[in-house]
Amino acid sequence: MKKLNRERVNNLLAGIAQFGKTEKGITRLAYSEEDFAAQKWLLDQVKDLDLQVTEDAIGNLILRREGRHTDWAPVAMGSHLDTVTQGGAYDGVLGVVGALEVMYMLQDEQLDRPLELIVFRAEESTRFGFATIGSKIMAGVGDPKKFSTATKKGDLSFEDCLRESGYDPDRYSEAIRNKGCFHCFFEMHIEQGKVLDETGEMIGIVRNIAAPTRFKITVEGLADHSGATPMSFRKDALVTAARLILAIQEAAVKESENGTVATVGIVEVEPGSINVIPGKVVLWVDLRGVNEESIQNALKNINGAVSLFAEEDEVLITVDMLTADKPVPLSDELAELFEEVCREGDISYRVMNSGAGHDAMHMAALAPTSMIFVPCKEGISHNPREYAKPEDIFTGIEVLAAAVKRVAVGR
Amino acid sequence: MKKLNRERVNNLLAGIAQFGKTEKGITRLAYSEEDFAAQKWLLDQVKDLDLQVTEDAIGNLILRREGRHTDWAPVAMGSHLDTVTQGGAYDGVLGVVGALEVMYMLQDEQLDRPLELIVFRAEESTRFGFATIGSKIMAGVGDPKKFSTATKKGDLSFEDCLRESGYDPDRYSEAIRNKGCFHCFFEMHIEQGKVLDETGEMIGIVRNIAAPTRFKITVEGLADHSGATPMSFRKDALVTAARLILAIQEAAVKESENGTVATVGIVEVEPGSINVIPGKVVLWVDLRGVNEESIQNALKNINGAVSLFAEEDEVLITVDMLTADKPVPLSDELAELFEEVCREGDISYRVMNSGAGHDAMHMAALAPTSMIFVPCKEGISHNPREYAKPEDIFTGIEVLAAAVKRVAVGR
Repeated sequence: MKKLNRERVNNLLAGIAQFGKTEKGITRLAYSEEDFAAQKWLLDQVKDLDLQVTEDAIGNLILRREGRHTDWAPVAMGSHLDTVTQGGAYDGVLGVVGALEVMYMLQDEQLDRPLELIVFRAEESTRFGFATIGSKIMAGVGDPKKFSTATKKGDLSFEDCLRESGYDPDRYSEAIRNKGCFHCFFEMHIEQGKVLDETGEMIGIVRNIAAPTRFKITVEGLADHSGATPMSFRKDALVTAARLILAIQEAAVKESENGTVATVGIVEVEPGSINVIPGKVVLWVDLRGVNEESIQNALKNINGAVSLFAEEDEVLITVDMLTADKPVPLSDELAELFEEVCREGDISYRVMNSGAGHDAMHMAALAPTSMIFVPCKEGISHNPREYAKPEDIFTGIEVLAAAVKRVAVGR
Repeated sequence: MKKLNRERVNNLLAGIAQFGKTEKGITRLAYSEEDFAAQKWLLDQVKDLDLQVTEDAIGNLILRREGRHTDWAPVAMGSHLDTVTQGGAYDGVLGVVGALEVMYMLQDEQLDRPLELIVFRAEESTRFGFATIGSKIMAGVGDPKKFSTATKKGDLSFEDCLRESGYDPDRYSEAIRNKGCFHCFFEMHIEQGKVLDETGEMIGIVRNIAAPTRFKITVEGLADHSGATPMSFRKDALVTAARLILAIQEAAVKESENGTVATVGIVEVEPGSINVIPGKVVLWVDLRGVNEESIQNALKNINGAVSLFAEEDEVLITVDMLTADKPVPLSDELAELFEEVCREGDISYRVMNSGAGHDAMHMAALAPTSMIFVPCKEGISHNPREYAKPEDIFTGIEVLAAAVKRVAVGR
């Protein structure tokens, strides 16, 4: 196996970070001009790998290198290039660049199985309100219609975006893969949490992925003049929404021992004028955990607050469920393989769960799947300050390459 | 005095309501295309009044009818045609249309004093974050630079808007009037509160106008991944903002006996993604009352909450004052004149305060000023459901006409 080329890894990471770069971080939304440009640039950089490049019906990119047995199921790796609004340079990108470097390291190796790298589309939910759209469609869970139900004001629906990008949403099912299409699937990612950064361990081996439950809460009060409406006559939707934000926080804090978290990330206020009492407020909520019971407890407490506040504040509150995925256990066997690789290389590691959702969670339905984490500074991600140390990145890639090599040789 | 022409009043109100009409109410922002079109249409309708039409340096419209003594200070009336986002058909418009009808009713009368109707620009703060801009500039309190400090993302500043509309912001001082430029000033308006609607009185005679204190509160926490950041590691700006919204509500409720009210009308969340913990939240607050001490008490409580939450939640909170106007007492003498007119016409009335700010509050610095209110249904305004009964409107106009006639005759 060839040695890892540090300069190449650094250059690819830095190069992709230019696409969507702004003063306040990197904004490279799914299917945006910047997203397409980043893919194109990346393919240009790795021409010397002689990969076979194909795109599926919704734009997931597949880069393939043949194995001795072209008909054997490939060893697949993958992640994504899209970012949140004002995000960082590592989330997703690391898994794509890392997998490409693995391809380079194994370039001269005789492998029995083909290798595939999948660059998934629309992993971040920023643009369409749904996460991991590309891998969901590939795994046959969800369709473009469903992913068009949370369209934000002023943006294209997922279906319209597909059309505008040159894909036909009606042909999405051509992108669906069958169980067994891969021999196995690997994803390398920054942790996006503080555990490894605090413990000093170099590799996180993921056993379960928390899944997001996402919903919109709409509070309808009464828009009214802010100066002439006495306090006791108001039905201020924002005041009730503020109570809900605190109740959601409290429900998650109560379940935090079980790793459950909840976040209100978006607030829409109508009409949104300084001299009008808000008549309508929409809160977008993201609730996650690896423990199904704990998630349900939090949800129950949030729904309790919804009923209580609707009655107390005499407003109408509705809850629209957007996603309710179940936590996903990953492959024990592949996790043990990663443990073995780490032990052999004398690399410290921790077996852990992932609080963030990843494309790997849907690939787990198609093939045995595993993930490794590299530490990320202070656990900060989805933020311009997102950072992973080059040394940690190189270690992650080397561990991944060793694992890929082992499963790509022999039956 | 000629009789009021009901059809004309109804037609003018209905005609103006067409400008900026949308499915969700009327949006006719200051200096917008719709605002200009509404003015133009209105002038076309009242050509038979033969009024002298002039515009001041920032676009306040002045419609004048001569009196026997052209050099005597005119009796002025006025209000505005701009609306909030998704507003109604009466706020401001009623005062303009009512004053025009008064001009018609007095068309054949020999009056000693000239009459003037002023259509003020930018009364609503929706567009620029400042209210009553046109009357403030006319009264010499504030300039285009100041009114350009609260520009919203994506919109023009007040100065740029003036330029784009064909005015020169550097010449704004030509619009300033001197004390005594009017003999007196009258404004008729819908109440925008529930008092008259509930008591059944037909006219509200205003003694004090509450003035808005407006400020922005910015909470800076830390944007972070919503799934991978444990609850105890978060600095969620929105959670602190929610506590502030409730503290602001509480501070106003505590002072509600004194007529003080407070509203958070705008919430800006950054980055505003469902999977990112809010790193920054801006709240726009409107605090009002007729009792200066009570306003200060509420402000003190709000500032106390700001300090406390900044410490408890370990976030940075800053408060930027936008406006801090003092409550304005109106003319006792003119209020008594209105009382007399009502008593003579056997019209029920109530002497009251105005919770909403009005252009009249700045005219009070230039001349003795008075306001009358007509009832508005359920006190709802700044809302498509804003409504005033035609009978109440006609009564208001007749009372105004009688008062204007009395002060326009003799010294």
